[in-house]
Amino acid sequence: MRSISAPAICAAVVKCDAYGLGLGPVARRLSEEGCTNFFVALPQEAISLRDSLKSLRRTHSIYILNGMNDDFRDICDDSVAPVLNSLEEIKLWQTFREQVGSGLPAIVNFDTGMNRLGLGRDETEQVLANAMTISPKYVNMIMSHLACADDPTHQKNQDQLDRFSNLIKVVGNRFKYSLANSPGVFLGSRFHFDMVRPGAALYGIGCNSKDRKKLSQVVELKSEIIQTRSVTNDETIGYGSDGRVDRPSRLATVALGYGDGLFRHLGNSGMGFISGRAVPVIGRVSMDLVTLDVTDVPETLCKKGDWVEFIGEYQSPDDLAVSAGTIGYEILTALGNRYRKGYVGTIS
Amino acid sequence: MRSISAPAICAAVVKCDAYGLGLGPVARRLSEEGCTNFFVALPQEAISLRDSLKSLRRTHSIYILNGMNDDFRDICDDSVAPVLNSLEEIKLWQTFREQVGSGLPAIVNFDTGMNRLGLGRDETEQVLANAMTISPKYVNMIMSHLACADDPTHQKNQDQLDRFSNLIKVVGNRFKYSLANSPGVFLGSRFHFDMVRPGAALYGIGCNSKDRKKLSQVVELKSEIIQTRSVTNDETIGYGSDGRVDRPSRLATVALGYGDGLFRHLGNSGMGFISGRAVPVIGRVSMDLVTLDVTDVPETLCKKGDWVEFIGEYQSPDDLAVSAGTIGYEILTALGNRYRKGYVGTIS
Repeated sequence: MRSISAPAICAAVVKCDAYGLGLGPVARRLSEEGCTNFFVALPQEAISLRDSLKSLRRTHSIYILNGMNDDFRDICDDSVAPVLNSLEEIKLWQTFREQVGSGLPAIVNFDTGMNRLGLGRDETEQVLANAMTISPKYVNMIMSHLACADDPTHQKNQDQLDRFSNLIKVVGNRFKYSLANSPGVFLGSRFHFDMVRPGAALYGIGCNSKDRKKLSQVVELKSEIIQTRSVTNDETIGYGSDGRVDRPSRLATVALGYGDGLFRHLGNSGMGFISGRAVPVIGRVSMDLVTLDVTDVPETLCKKGDWVEFIGEYQSPDDLAVSAGTIGYEILTALGNRYRKGYVGTIS
Repeated sequence: MRSISAPAICAAVVKCDAYGLGLGPVARRLSEEGCTNFFVALPQEAISLRDSLKSLRRTHSIYILNGMNDDFRDICDDSVAPVLNSLEEIKLWQTFREQVGSGLPAIVNFDTGMNRLGLGRDETEQVLANAMTISPKYVNMIMSHLACADDPTHQKNQDQLDRFSNLIKVVGNRFKYSLANSPGVFLGSRFHFDMVRPGAALYGIGCNSKDRKKLSQVVELKSEIIQTRSVTNDETIGYGSDGRVDRPSRLATVALGYGDGLFRHLGNSGMGFISGRAVPVIGRVSMDLVTLDVTDVPETLCKKGDWVEFIGEYQSPDDLAVSAGTIGYEILTALGNRYRKGYVGTIS
């Protein structure tokens, strides 16, 4: 992402426990790769991230996307600042910074058409009428967020780019600028400005299917077969007797369920993989268990204690998401707390 | 649940972090209410539960539903034992207990038609042919699990009851017996035997809609409005520009997203509540944010810093689940790690 975005700075979005993958190890590895700018959603995520990075003894900037409120006074320092989403928050921030003096400057977020977070149309007009509303003393960057970047043909991308460019024209070169999320990076250099903010792409997910091919698949999820059994086609499988087979079949029960993020929407529709062979989910997904049809896999590969891959070489988070009617992002953030997590490569 | 089940013992299922609500506080409170038998899914959950209950200085029995394997040797003691799901596991367990001597006896689980976990048809035949296969020295209870108990009219309930009763006839009164999960308790005393094992009902969810009325709603989930804005009906809201309003509207952006278990399937379909008034989700649910249409709620009730209820008096976990195409169980287990959890009442 850094090489595609250069000369823009490449920040990293690590909110929601680094998209479910573990904030500490992920952020420390990114720091070792040279990343110094991080984005989180919540104040407590900023505190946790600052603690995780402390031992590296490098300078980092951590921005809290969900904005400024009174609780933030004790959190902000030389490495933590909010993204300000309204004139009211800008005012709060300036008052606070006038009191404490030094510290990391904040980012101001303009809503250019997503209607979710950031200065809206009226407040943007006020800034355009008086650019001095935002002081470079306390703010060093202006950002916005793209709503439809995963669809490069969507008219909204150009609309948002136009609104953002118009803002830059008025507010001028007193600030740095940032617009692109992961799919925005792939929209081309017109969208890069001074800093890009990929999240999803760092974890090998999101973007459209064409751009996704440029990403590495970095997550692997496996669980263990805890029992196998044979069933005939007059039997039913699982809750609600919803699962059926159309021939005498072998089933494997795996210690993984919706309590671990294997969504119930994957019942009778998702699949795992054993040595590259697809093994479909039969019946409903239980809280702690899922039952797979392993009839077409040699018995020697699916005994108690053997492992089934749910995310990995043969199925990306985005693939699994399609079966569940969602996106890879939600597959990752839904991964529960019961996994043993391991990290490949060096992490301080 | 205890009074409905008496004279059967009422155990508590607290797997998956007590259905997402916090294993320690939930189990300690249940213990104070007199509960001494607990069920978890995984070995690490048993260890965590044993630690949580230690300070109470009472005797508890903790059973691990997902069965026995070699790793269990170090875990099992006077308060922890597995539920054995196959003849192989029974053998492993007996060998282990012959070596170490004393300890909590295990439970043997027979699969009476769910085809998920437990001794299957062939192994059950073997036990029926030689009841001495299971020694009361190392096992004190026989259990099975109901597949369709939430539908009292389902033929499967009687089928499973018949198979279980047949087993009891042969294996005899050397053991205690347990069949009913939460909805099984409501099927009547024929299903209760010596111990019932409610999970869901303890947390106010599951069962069919008639029985659910007998349960208390015990979970409340709120999050904060972090921004409000006005939109016209020519604007779009959120990712993919999927959200639209058909009149000039006021929106509230709330700090809650699919990363917190507010499923993406709730996009343009779920709702929150402000002072009892429904506020529908507009557009897609983001990872950390959701946008609500608050046009019909007085502005004084939906300012920045005001709270929106997603689970509580006006919307149960099961209600929210309907909008997401799932069940209340998954709503609770999907609650993420970013909440401040509070418990009402006394917990040691």
